[in-house]
Amino acid sequence: MNKYKIAIDVMGSDNGPEVLTRGALKALDEHDDLEIVLFGDEKTVEEVISQSGADRSRIEIVGTTEVVDNYDNPMEAIYKKQDSSLVRALTALGGRDDIAGLINASSTGALLAGSLRYAPARPIRRPALAALLPAQKGGFVCLVDTGANIDCNAEQLVDFAYMGAELMKKYYKIDEPRIGLLSNGAEPTKGNKLVKETHAILADKKDLNFIGNIEGNKALSGDCDVLVTDGFAGNQVLKNSEGIAKRLITDVVTYGKKTGNDEIIKLAHHLAGLYDFNSLGGAVVMGVCKPIIKAHGAANADSITNTSSMLLNMLKNNDLFNGKDFR
Amino acid sequence: MNKYKIAIDVMGSDNGPEVLTRGALKALDEHDDLEIVLFGDEKTVEEVISQSGADRSRIEIVGTTEVVDNYDNPMEAIYKKQDSSLVRALTALGGRDDIAGLINASSTGALLAGSLRYAPARPIRRPALAALLPAQKGGFVCLVDTGANIDCNAEQLVDFAYMGAELMKKYYKIDEPRIGLLSNGAEPTKGNKLVKETHAILADKKDLNFIGNIEGNKALSGDCDVLVTDGFAGNQVLKNSEGIAKRLITDVVTYGKKTGNDEIIKLAHHLAGLYDFNSLGGAVVMGVCKPIIKAHGAANADSITNTSSMLLNMLKNNDLFNGKDFR
Repeated sequence: MNKYKIAIDVMGSDNGPEVLTRGALKALDEHDDLEIVLFGDEKTVEEVISQSGADRSRIEIVGTTEVVDNYDNPMEAIYKKQDSSLVRALTALGGRDDIAGLINASSTGALLAGSLRYAPARPIRRPALAALLPAQKGGFVCLVDTGANIDCNAEQLVDFAYMGAELMKKYYKIDEPRIGLLSNGAEPTKGNKLVKETHAILADKKDLNFIGNIEGNKALSGDCDVLVTDGFAGNQVLKNSEGIAKRLITDVVTYGKKTGNDEIIKLAHHLAGLYDFNSLGGAVVMGVCKPIIKAHGAANADSITNTSSMLLNMLKNNDLFNGKDFR
Repeated sequence: MNKYKIAIDVMGSDNGPEVLTRGALKALDEHDDLEIVLFGDEKTVEEVISQSGADRSRIEIVGTTEVVDNYDNPMEAIYKKQDSSLVRALTALGGRDDIAGLINASSTGALLAGSLRYAPARPIRRPALAALLPAQKGGFVCLVDTGANIDCNAEQLVDFAYMGAELMKKYYKIDEPRIGLLSNGAEPTKGNKLVKETHAILADKKDLNFIGNIEGNKALSGDCDVLVTDGFAGNQVLKNSEGIAKRLITDVVTYGKKTGNDEIIKLAHHLAGLYDFNSLGGAVVMGVCKPIIKAHGAANADSITNTSSMLLNMLKNNDLFNGKDFR
């Protein structure tokens, strides 16, 4: 059985290292082929492990003394806090062959800046943040960028297309990912200046399966596998989708309570499962040497377990891809 | 009883003048204080009216021989097609004191260009397209711009704020409309270049109730009355909201059919009513001398009836506002 070793930074989130460690141990329980390296406060991590009775042979602990969180200036933190769990985990990801991926739930800004500094892809790319969102037609839509790059130029958007295509090929087993460009109309003439420029470049790329513009109402339809956009508009699509889905689920709950119909409350739970974007997809840092998943700052133990499963699946798919056993 | 006369352009939509005329007559039926001026093919309009037995004393027909539709170049059409229902209706709106507002369901581009040419506000403003969308907390959010101005500068966004505030004051009885700026974070430091520039200007305006940045998940929450954004991002919020709402309603229907629970099918209808953005809100052209509502190109008779009621309500509110009877 192939083993997959992933690094988990348990520090810097809203819920503290105990919670994240428990989530990581649960993932170990669920997957026999998983091994973990936990970066963070050694004493706390040790305590949680000893209480759990987990299989120590599949756990490595790297004790660290500093923490990077949302109150830090990202650039300063990644240079100055050399013994932080974030910097140590990123350095290990970049330098150790046995570590295949990383999960982090602290500062997005520091994670992005640090990933470029300590674990860049070759050629070095400015990192982007993709969201893997459930498509209406099934599977996932890779929305990139979702907020790491707010003001973009056309070259960056083209790079997002390539990074998204690579991600969906390697880690999601999509043969020729369909690349869509978010716009305000389906016609090639529609779009702001950035979108029109990007459209013209993408249309000429023979090595990309560019299918043209996608409108907002089809952003998550599944008409494309990768939806390319600047981080400002992508952030709107991501957060607006979450907001509207939550709102309708609230309406369903209200209606269920009013009518006293238990089946409707069950339906609300069903919908909440379908549209829990945080634990379902997760945000993937792109432009890095190996996959990094950014869990939400408010991630609970279950989120870390789910994120670990997602990363493990990605790694297994990539093995198939590299081994030419792909499709 | 005060009478309100509105112009309705029955040409250039997907469904033909018979359907739009029927919708207009139904609105007459529902509102005793409504009068209509129908612009379009005289023979068709006359036929529909005579078949309906409607009250002729409240109907005026302006026969026109040309049609502007989505296949026309907007700028060319509004200059060359002088006997089109669109140009004749806009000229009447700008020139006749008795006509208080206009409904149109043809080409958005031609309507916007024509409104600036034939019925501008003083001072002349570049028109914008606002959507009045149902807020989660009740009432409406005025989202501006939704696609009329794709590449914007900060001055335009500030103008959107003023036009939106005016609209919500005059026509929606909101005393001091709360102005929000769509961004990727609530903090003033968040946003793309355009948003940061706009934020700085809006923050200094003493005559606007600017409440700061609003994130995509709160776009339609009702935390603000006017949500200011460029037409590209606004188009994403509008269409993405529609897309996600429709998707969840489809999920509800599927679940209802699977479980055979009739109450769930009723719930789906309830939700479809709450989130039918087309017939609920309608798009308002701003920067014009009098209110213009752009109905969807696929508008059916009911849409025109609903849009007429919406326009009539706006006009009545404005009367209260002008007569100082406001709040």
